[in-house]
Amino acid sequence: MTQVLLTAFSNRLDAIELANHAVATLGQRGISAALCHLDNDAAISIGDDALVVSLGGDGTFLKAAHVAHRFGARILAVNLGRVGFLLDVRADELVDSIVTAIEHNDADDRLALQVILEGGHTAFAMNEVVVERKAAGHMVRVTTFLDDEEFLTYSADGVMVSTPTGSTGYNFSAGGPMVDASLPLMIVTPVAPHFTIDRSLVVSDTRTVRLVAGSKPAVVVADSHVIGTLEPGQSVKVIRHPIPVRVVRSRGFDMGVRLRQSLREGHA
Amino acid sequence: MTQVLLTAFSNRLDAIELANHAVATLGQRGISAALCHLDNDAAISIGDDALVVSLGGDGTFLKAAHVAHRFGARILAVNLGRVGFLLDVRADELVDSIVTAIEHNDADDRLALQVILEGGHTAFAMNEVVVERKAAGHMVRVTTFLDDEEFLTYSADGVMVSTPTGSTGYNFSAGGPMVDASLPLMIVTPVAPHFTIDRSLVVSDTRTVRLVAGSKPAVVVADSHVIGTLEPGQSVKVIRHPIPVRVVRSRGFDMGVRLRQSLREGHA
Amino acid sequence: MTQVLLTAFSNRLDAIELANHAVATLGQRGISAALCHLDNDAAISIGDDALVVSLGGDGTFLKAAHVAHRFGARILAVNLGRVGFLLDVRADELVDSIVTAIEHNDADDRLALQVILEGGHTAFAMNEVVVERKAAGHMVRVTTFLDDEEFLTYSADGVMVSTPTGSTGYNFSAGGPMVDASLPLMIVTPVAPHFTIDRSLVVSDTRTVRLVAGSKPAVVVADSHVIGTLEPGQSVKVIRHPIPVRVVRSRGFDMGVRLRQSLREGHA
Amino acid sequence: MTQVLLTAFSNRLDAIELANHAVATLGQRGISAALCHLDNDAAISIGDDALVVSLGGDGTFLKAAHVAHRFGARILAVNLGRVGFLLDVRADELVDSIVTAIEHNDADDRLALQVILEGGHTAFAMNEVVVERKAAGHMVRVTTFLDDEEFLTYSADGVMVSTPTGSTGYNFSAGGPMVDASLPLMIVTPVAPHFTIDRSLVVSDTRTVRLVAGSKPAVVVADSHVIGTLEPGQSVKVIRHPIPVRVVRSRGFDMGVRLRQSLREGHA
Repeated sequence: MTQVLLTAFSNRLDAIELANHAVATLGQRGISAALCHLDNDAAISIGDDALVVSLGGDGTFLKAAHVAHRFGARILAVNLGRVGFLLDVRADELVDSIVTAIEHNDADDRLALQVILEGGHTAFAMNEVVVERKAAGHMVRVTTFLDDEEFLTYSADGVMVSTPTGSTGYNFSAGGPMVDASLPLMIVTPVAPHFTIDRSLVVSDTRTVRLVAGSKPAVVVADSHVIGTLEPGQSVKVIRHPIPVRVVRSRGFDMGVRLRQSLREGHA
Repeated sequence: MTQVLLTAFSNRLDAIELANHAVATLGQRGISAALCHLDNDAAISIGDDALVVSLGGDGTFLKAAHVAHRFGARILAVNLGRVGFLLDVRADELVDSIVTAIEHNDADDRLALQVILEGGHTAFAMNEVVVERKAAGHMVRVTTFLDDEEFLTYSADGVMVSTPTGSTGYNFSAGGPMVDASLPLMIVTPVAPHFTIDRSLVVSDTRTVRLVAGSKPAVVVADSHVIGTLEPGQSVKVIRHPIPVRVVRSRGFDMGVRLRQSLREGHA
Repeated sequence: MTQVLLTAFSNRLDAIELANHAVATLGQRGISAALCHLDNDAAISIGDDALVVSLGGDGTFLKAAHVAHRFGARILAVNLGRVGFLLDVRADELVDSIVTAIEHNDADDRLALQVILEGGHTAFAMNEVVVERKAAGHMVRVTTFLDDEEFLTYSADGVMVSTPTGSTGYNFSAGGPMVDASLPLMIVTPVAPHFTIDRSLVVSDTRTVRLVAGSKPAVVVADSHVIGTLEPGQSVKVIRHPIPVRVVRSRGFDMGVRLRQSLREGHA
Repeated sequence: MTQVLLTAFSNRLDAIELANHAVATLGQRGISAALCHLDNDAAISIGDDALVVSLGGDGTFLKAAHVAHRFGARILAVNLGRVGFLLDVRADELVDSIVTAIEHNDADDRLALQVILEGGHTAFAMNEVVVERKAAGHMVRVTTFLDDEEFLTYSADGVMVSTPTGSTGYNFSAGGPMVDASLPLMIVTPVAPHFTIDRSLVVSDTRTVRLVAGSKPAVVVADSHVIGTLEPGQSVKVIRHPIPVRVVRSRGFDMGVRLRQSLREGHA
């Protein structure tokens, strides 16, 4: 039977309260549910038939997606907006969404990235991988390769490879396009490039993107976490992760509505 | 047997000379070839087993692709660069490229657009469709729909839907991303939008993009030609054209090299 | 005695009603006021001690500023926002603003542009002058000169010279910076430039900016009106107009507040 | 008598050789000259009548300008371009430029910034001051104030205040405009802002720009050096430095030529 794992950060009291209600209600319906704080996600262990529910904003979804992906479980994103904003999900709607997800047992595959550092260490990224400057106030020089063909060299704060899911995150900040989450592609976007073209490049997810550090060391950041360092001349490879993230679409998702809301809040 | 149609604009004397050489040489090899000026492309009639060869720059390719698509023929792009620059194809290489294309008889399918105006008139676009202001000095208001879901409304000079092939054209000028020509997607990019987000939106080519004119009339432009007018409230639908453009890849295409060269020439 | 000229477009019924109230109230206080529709501004004639009041949005201010500048009169901008939005000025506040403006009799000088076409014809621009493509779907090639020094050449939809006052208008749409209205400078901004740098250039208002049309004809647009045509090789000069626009600051102007509001409305 | 201080980084062997030649030649003409490496600029001490000469690229000029400003001396920038590129100054021209600068004894005043941290610590910046994220992979939230009026709040990698001299540096990378070096203004530019407007704001140099850190700590970077930290709620003030940088214009400076060259090199 499907196990439900509600997840939230412990400082989101509204999410915690909502989750506790849902755990109780689901129990009354005979569905096994638990709440786990994402602050310490290493302690979590679930089966691949579990349903992970993220209660919060983009950061919560990102963390919960890492957990779900680690165990091959599905994830249901419940967007609560910012602290202090009205919740757009009521407790009973949350439970209904979960019950529907259990009954239908399907999900959309979302592209994730596999990051391969020199030496063979690998990492997972749901949103993006960035090769960026190590020290404040300096640029890095990064040469991009597609498969084995040299593309552009950027002097910049950094160069990222983003997934469609991550396209509205850091990629968007850096000027990159918004991309349908279902598309099989990767987006290469420079951050604050100097005297170079600043457009994004959209490539097939069958490609290998390689980012090579120039004359200065750089750090490699995956989903906001530093996962390694590149010495001058070293490189990192980014490919489609063999295992996608399995996302259950929640009712009422509408990119236009959400985007307009985000843009208005952005200027609040 | 494959018929070869070399095409060029009549004011590109270097292209005309190159084409005449090629027609003669191909004839000696028993291959039927002819030169047609693109200035008057309505006069051209070929079979779907023909090979259209465009000799010139992006504008030449665009016009020749319209011809090839009309008859279902393949197109081979030979990029001659700007007038006065050194040609990157020698006469004998041109002939070899053509012979190779005849022998292999394959091609890549490139996404094209079908534009459906109210009233049912349709048009073809290889690069992009733009709904834009009718008069100099004024903005249009355009609301975008994806399938039947409302997306953003722009006050702008125009809003375009671009193919991957067209991504390095007007889409690039307007700030849109460069896209792998093989990808199955469309790019929605506003031109000079006012007080709105200026990012592109990348959507699946299975989508219908609808552009609705607001309170002022607008013109619809496909591949640089005005194909219709929208009165306030009228709309145009853009979908993937049922028939792709069949492009023969020429030897030595390298996006990175060509892009770097274009960028350097852009600042010459 | 100061004559008050309230101005509005005839289709802004809220503005007309507000103006009629104000004319009556001002008359009771012994102040001579009249309402003129801006639709036919050629009929207006006033003295240089008049106070022109614009009731409407940016377009109304622009038209009224042309009228005020023609006669050397001061202008008071009353921003009514969009039709249907709540007015941010009540009828009594409007009258108080006007009375205060009459009593203090001062104004800020705002930079305007003088446009000099070949042949000697000149024009006035409060916001911006654009050299742009003549036909839909084509680019123009424009070379920019600062005094007699060649700067960049753009293939673009157009190239504009904007005033600080105009910086939040078309300049903003094209990616240009917002500029303090009091600063003595001009902003050169390309619109959708191809394979060239897209940054604005900010220069002293003591400079002469010259825009030269390349191989295709272009139109010259000043404050949204076509004022001339450039044949290939012809140019237009843009300098600071010898007579500034005299703007009375209205109470409660706050660029941050207004900008945030515009940005939120832009995504409404 | 004017003392000449030639400055270069010790790893720029071409600059060092050029400087040694110049020291000898100037000595033969009775002019006292010395070479100092910029690697250890704390050791340098000169009078305010000295002439500092920077031999190198933008980084060299920046470091040498700090030295010159500390002592109130003039600075002459000799741009050697990148290592390996042809020098644009010959050895004999260098000496002539220096002799001319000594004879004419004039200079242009260039705006510099004074950065005032909470607690009263101040710093100098020739190019820009940035309030930026402390840790890789995270955004900072920065609210901007002009004098005491709140402007926009950005979630971004950082927010900078740039001088006209610095406008072609980090400001340019972040999308800001190029500004005539002589203009009395400051440029506020966000770096990779999320869901907010990304335009620069150009304000008078008589303004006080205040940048307030939001809920996360931030670092303050002046001319690429970390000069302090902001705890949440703390702020930094940026004003025009009371003492400008005194720059001697070298012969043959041409912004258009240099910009076109930089853009071409950027895509080399």
